[in-house]
Amino acid sequence: MKKGIAEVPGVKCGTAFAGIKKTEKPINRPDVLVIVTDEPSEFAAVFTRNDVKAAPIKVSMEITGKVSGIVANSGNANACTGERGLADAVEMSKLASQLTGKGKFLVASTGVIGEPMPMERVRKGIAEAVKNLGKAKREEPARAIMTTDTFPKTAFTKGNGYVIGGIAKGAGMIDPSMATMLSFVATDVKISKELLQRALREAVEVSFNAITVDGDMSTNDCVFLLSTGRNSVEITENNYREFRENLTVVLKDLAYQIVKDGEGATKVARVVVEKAKSKEQAKAVARKIALSPLVKTAIFGCDPNWGRIAAAAGAAMVGVEEEKMEIYIGSFLLFKGRRVDYNEEEVFRYMKENDEITIKVVLNQGEEKFEYLTCDLTYDYVRINAEYRT
Amino acid sequence: MKKGIAEVPGVKCGTAFAGIKKTEKPINRPDVLVIVTDEPSEFAAVFTRNDVKAAPIKVSMEITGKVSGIVANSGNANACTGERGLADAVEMSKLASQLTGKGKFLVASTGVIGEPMPMERVRKGIAEAVKNLGKAKREEPARAIMTTDTFPKTAFTKGNGYVIGGIAKGAGMIDPSMATMLSFVATDVKISKELLQRALREAVEVSFNAITVDGDMSTNDCVFLLSTGRNSVEITENNYREFRENLTVVLKDLAYQIVKDGEGATKVARVVVEKAKSKEQAKAVARKIALSPLVKTAIFGCDPNWGRIAAAAGAAMVGVEEEKMEIYIGSFLLFKGRRVDYNEEEVFRYMKENDEITIKVVLNQGEEKFEYLTCDLTYDYVRINAEYRT
Repeated sequence: MKKGIAEVPGVKCGTAFAGIKKTEKPINRPDVLVIVTDEPSEFAAVFTRNDVKAAPIKVSMEITGKVSGIVANSGNANACTGERGLADAVEMSKLASQLTGKGKFLVASTGVIGEPMPMERVRKGIAEAVKNLGKAKREEPARAIMTTDTFPKTAFTKGNGYVIGGIAKGAGMIDPSMATMLSFVATDVKISKELLQRALREAVEVSFNAITVDGDMSTNDCVFLLSTGRNSVEITENNYREFRENLTVVLKDLAYQIVKDGEGATKVARVVVEKAKSKEQAKAVARKIALSPLVKTAIFGCDPNWGRIAAAAGAAMVGVEEEKMEIYIGSFLLFKGRRVDYNEEEVFRYMKENDEITIKVVLNQGEEKFEYLTCDLTYDYVRINAEYRT
Repeated sequence: MKKGIAEVPGVKCGTAFAGIKKTEKPINRPDVLVIVTDEPSEFAAVFTRNDVKAAPIKVSMEITGKVSGIVANSGNANACTGERGLADAVEMSKLASQLTGKGKFLVASTGVIGEPMPMERVRKGIAEAVKNLGKAKREEPARAIMTTDTFPKTAFTKGNGYVIGGIAKGAGMIDPSMATMLSFVATDVKISKELLQRALREAVEVSFNAITVDGDMSTNDCVFLLSTGRNSVEITENNYREFRENLTVVLKDLAYQIVKDGEGATKVARVVVEKAKSKEQAKAVARKIALSPLVKTAIFGCDPNWGRIAAAAGAAMVGVEEEKMEIYIGSFLLFKGRRVDYNEEEVFRYMKENDEITIKVVLNQGEEKFEYLTCDLTYDYVRINAEYRT
């Protein structure tokens, strides 16, 4: 079992099964998670940019100063639930404070949109999770926030005298509009709120914002980062870069796991765009390719269909020059201003035999680079999402 | 058999089978189309905005003045084919001029990207199609430009003393990046080039640009509109509006057929956004909903999942206000600031029993409206596109 947020000094986690989602099949995992820090912690947060924000997002956005932890649930997103939903989210946050005897709590939810929260069950679940504080370790906290996820997602790394550990959920990620991903991360460094927020923003940009989740986030997406300050290491401008790099390692690890668990996915594809004239151009091209259903179905079919990749690159409408462009799948060059000779069978075999494949587009217009993660589009994606609710 | 472009006075069509696409299964339809007008015609054109433009697009974009017709083929897109592709497209255009003894020809291609045009066969095909001029009527010209289309697409209408007829191809339209749609339309009015171009631009905006094809067009997309002037009716500012409305009827008819033939589609969905604060807001929201894979799979599953519709509306990030929003499927109100009571079984039945369903989102922020057409996302979409080439 991999380390996660519970292995960060100063952090304790408790989970409970409250039966929040009415379902015929009982689930064998918890659906309420309470995370507390021994002392109030600085925190940083990134929220969905969707105009339709879930109640817990609205409530958490209003929280300032330090927090004592996070209360979260799966099975119900508490989104599009009006005034009552807001009151429920506030109550969840307050209940966690009261029952732990601590300060403010961030709140997050994931699951079905539009159903009222079954608050009686939620209250019991929070009470039980608080009683269990300290018991949920390694992958257990991540299990409490799973929905269509098929495995819990945790990541952990050591910096120079400190650690960073986190968990995440997310699987509906093939669709960029409504991924409903959550991620909770903690570290034991001392750091100012400003620097913590900057590190989170910069690390999210190349991790969660570089998988096909984010262009338009869900009603519930959020990433919370707590610093317990339990370690004597202090992050300042001097050692900021190292801290941000370590944070990026953890977030990229979690982001990779979300793509790997993409609904119905059988393969992860790294879309690398190089020698772009700007970061923005590189990202726009990478994103367009990563989002293309035609490219994604070609990956599923192990079809080295570079024509679809070229067309998607051009469709980004950021000044791609066809004559200069090179397209690789794995190490195979398929296009260089025009089709080049390659062994189709060989490329097919590379795509067939690997769970992770690389699509590289070299624009030869500058020196900038960006990498996006995506997965294939399969029959199972359609099955999962055509059957999800009814 | 429905009327199309060949039924416009002054227009003659000829087709031929040239065997342009190498395939194991012989196709029982032509793959070369030549359209000529008795006298040189004014024309208007709308082209793909993709940075990667196919050779015929580049060649047609350079054509000015009047034209004598259009030469087109299916089976090969002549895209990403470098200098040779350009030379081939120019040759196709010139060959049509020479063999008909007429003026300039627009050129268009559709099919696989990146393969060189088999020019020997193409030349023979054009020669034969020219010999057959006048023989291809009704749906026959449309059959020559089909690729994954399952039926030929034609439309025809009568205005006040004139007619407008057209054909189109397109089926990979579920994916907005690379639809590869073509449409050729003719009318017998007299009209200035400026007014013709304006009518085409305005009519395309609410037809082909209001289906999930166009946000990012393919390498080959184009719409050509010819006016033969064979009729004595002249279009001026006075009767412009009526002409544009009739043109819109024809283009909307063709656009509807493209959606109906969407790869793997079983249902057409009209996404209507009303009471928006601006046309742009209405269109952005309608488009986001129409593109959402989660909404499209829910339509396939006949799941009245208004939560996904709400989330997609918010993901457009154009200031949708959740409290004011209403969501309808068919005539059933499902959401009004929050979930309302409705009979889920009844809505399911409506979605199940109809080939065309309506999703209506009322924003209650103004008076503007926009309508988008989309289709469901099915297993067959994945099958068709995972198997397309290999």
